[in-house]
This record gives sequence, C-alpha cells and structure tokens, in this order.
Amino acid sequence: MAEEVKLFRNWSSPYGLRVLWALKLKGIEYEEVLEDLSNKSPLLLQYNPVYKKIPVLVHNEKPICESVLILEYLDETWKQNPLLPEDPYQRAKARFWAKFGDETILPTIRLGALIKEGKELEVAILSTIESLKYLEEELRGKKFFGGETIGLADLALGWIAYYMDVLEEVIGVKVIDQEKFPLLVAWIQEFSNIPMIKKSWPPRDKLHDRYAGFRRAALGEETPK
Amino acid sequence: MAEEVKLFRNWSSPYGLRVLWALKLKGIEYEEVLEDLSNKSPLLLQYNPVYKKIPVLVHNEKPICESVLILEYLDETWKQNPLLPEDPYQRAKARFWAKFGDETILPTIRLGALIKEGKELEVAILSTIESLKYLEEELRGKKFFGGETIGLADLALGWIAYYMDVLEEVIGVKVIDQEKFPLLVAWIQEFSNIPMIKKSWPPRDKLHDRYAGFRRAALGEETPK
Repeated sequence: MAEEVKLFRNWSSPYGLRVLWALKLKGIEYEEVLEDLSNKSPLLLQYNPVYKKIPVLVHNEKPICESVLILEYLDETWKQNPLLPEDPYQRAKARFWAKFGDETILPTIRLGALIKEGKELEVAILSTIESLKYLEEELRGKKFFGGETIGLADLALGWIAYYMDVLEEVIGVKVIDQEKFPLLVAWIQEFSNIPMIKKSWPPRDKLHDRYAGFRRAALGEETPK
Repeated sequence: MAEEVKLFRNWSSPYGLRVLWALKLKGIEYEEVLEDLSNKSPLLLQYNPVYKKIPVLVHNEKPICESVLILEYLDETWKQNPLLPEDPYQRAKARFWAKFGDETILPTIRLGALIKEGKELEVAILSTIESLKYLEEELRGKKFFGGETIGLADLALGWIAYYMDVLEEVIGVKVIDQEKFPLLVAWIQEFSNIPMIKKSWPPRDKLHDRYAGFRRAALGEETPK
C-alpha cells in the first residue's frame, strides 16, 4: 500500500514545526494542510475532536494528535534517522527534556512573560531563566541534546532557537545571552545552521507581528482579533 | 550485575501508585522509599533536582523522573507483561489517553473542583464530565483501555477507580454514575478487582481526610498544614 501521510499544522505554531522537522529528517513524503486557526477545517475537527488543535498527523487515514506523541509515532513507524537512542535511560532523558520544555519553558515565556508587565513580567522572566539553566547544564559536553546529532529533545526544544529571539524583542527583555548561556547560544547556532531547519522558520516579521498583537491585546491595548 | 530498583513515592500520590503497579505487573523486585513530602529526603532532591517531586525510579543509581516516562522506561527495560502494544498507532493512542488524564481530568477535578465552590465548582464539574465522556467512548467494545489486559493508559488513569469516589464525597457532588458512564463504571469494577490493584490503595479514611483538609484550607476554612 502506498503510504499516505498528511500533516495538519499552521504557519506559526512551534508544535507543528517539530513534526515537520521529524518528517524531513526521516525523508518521509507528506502532504501539508495549512490550517487557519480562526476558521478550522471540518477535517481537523474530525481528526482531533478532543483538543481541536494542530498539529495532527494522518497516516493512512489514522489520525495521531499531540506533537511529541507524533514524534514517537514517526520514530516507531519509520526507523531511519532515529529521533530516540536505543538505550532506555537515554530515551527517558530525551523525553524528560522535551516534556520540560513544553510544561515549563513554553508556558512561562509565551503564556507568562509575553502577556504580563511590571512585577509579573519580572517573575515570569526569572522563572524562564531558572528553567533555561537546566538546559544549559544538560548541554555540557554535548553538541545537541541528542548528542552528536539532533534527536527528539532537540526537535521539541527547537523553537527556542528562533522564537525566543522574537519573543524577547516583543517583550523588550533579553533572556538568553552569551554570558549566562554560552552552551545554549552555541546550540542555537548549531541547530539553526542545519539547512532543513533554516529553511523552515516562519517569516520573522509576521511572527513578530503576531506575538506583538497577542501582547497588546493581553495588556488591554487593543481588542484581540 | 544484580538489578537495584528503588521507588521513591509517598503514601497518597496517584502518580506514585501507577509506577508501583507497573513494577508489580512486571514482577520486578524493588525497594520502596516512602517520602514525607513536607520534609523531603536529600536523596529525593538529588535524584529529581528539577521538580523535587515523587515518584522517582532509581535503577542501578540512574534516576528516572515523571511517572509516565517511568512507565515507558520500565516497559523498554523489562519486556515481560508489556504496558504498550506493538502497533505504533495503538501505542500513540494509549499515550494520548494517559496524557489526557494527566492534563485534563486530574487538574479539573483535583486542582479545580476540589478547591472551588459555587459557580466555579459547577464549571469544574461540568468540565470533568465532558472529559470523562471521551474515556467512556474510548472504552466502547473494550474491557480495559489496553484491550483485554491493562496497559499504560489503564495504569495512568487507574486513580479514577478509587480517588474519584473519595473526591466526589469530599466535594459533595457525584460525577461518575451508572447512567451517564456505564462503561467507565464497568471499567472501574474490572480494574479494582485485580488483586494487585485492590491491595495497593491507600487507606480510604486517611485519603478522605487529606483531600477534605485541602478543600477546607483552599476555601479559607482552615490554615493549610
């Protein structure tokens, strides 16, 4: 049977991007369905009735939801260029940092700092910095979170390499600097230099506008669109 | 090398319990370290510096954190009595429902309904019921979430079989009833009848007191201990 792989994502989501990276890394042919999140397609709602969110991977009509679970599915179904190492302990560590990014760093910066000001903003920034210190430590002696090559944790944390700078600019606070985070800065460089990654980022100005709009709306400076 | 397996948990946590179940299901010999969460041991803080939480599994001095990731680790390291099926799509589904329970049901009932009253309580209960309907649907035609035998999703959702009734009693609202949730009620029965599960629950009155204390403290009726 010919494999039919469809990726439902939108132009801006870091969750969709990590699935796209995994597909490219493994050289899987796929069709992309770009969703407008303000007007979701009936197919998206059908494939992800619980969360009604992107990304969704549909493989031969079977929908898989939740980006990290999609990465696991891809890794189990297409064995080439593995995202997870063989050793169960190293696998657990990769999964841990992927989860940590989603549960700790993404919320503090994107749902926290981005929509706060004053004392609350300060707290969210400090908390983001504290979390990033764990990543800095994890990178000691390694080029990527996956070691010599990128793996599941790199893909899940990959948004940091591009979105963080945009978020910092919108918020007006520098979070990741060379002095505090030399290893993370080196990782951002290495990760961003991978041609497949470099080509995949959404347009910077459009992303900036989107986050700036979120921030203005949250701070009551404009009605959310 | 002799395998050394230690489980750090406390007497009441549903997260610790699922790891204990997996160890028992696989017949893995382990030593249990019961933590007092108001006075955590230096070892727990050393093994889980990021979250400082139980459960932690320590296997030959290597710590693994996050209960569902521990289940995956156990399943990859000890192959007997698998928690996940072989088929990648079925694996993705099991992981999805485990994650759904942790991100949707546990927070709405335990961090939501348990500490709310009035309109907010009503909203949290309705939201819990909406989430449980997905589980009801998932159980159609199956004895367990894992099919004929219990698997990762059953272990992760297993707390529902015991804690939900205690929470309902403390809150004073019935959530899971035979009429609305016949399949879930049948699953609770089947799951609770497994001897290894039945023997593992914490004392009901102690658990009731703990949650009643949380509720009183949250509603300002008493200083939290």
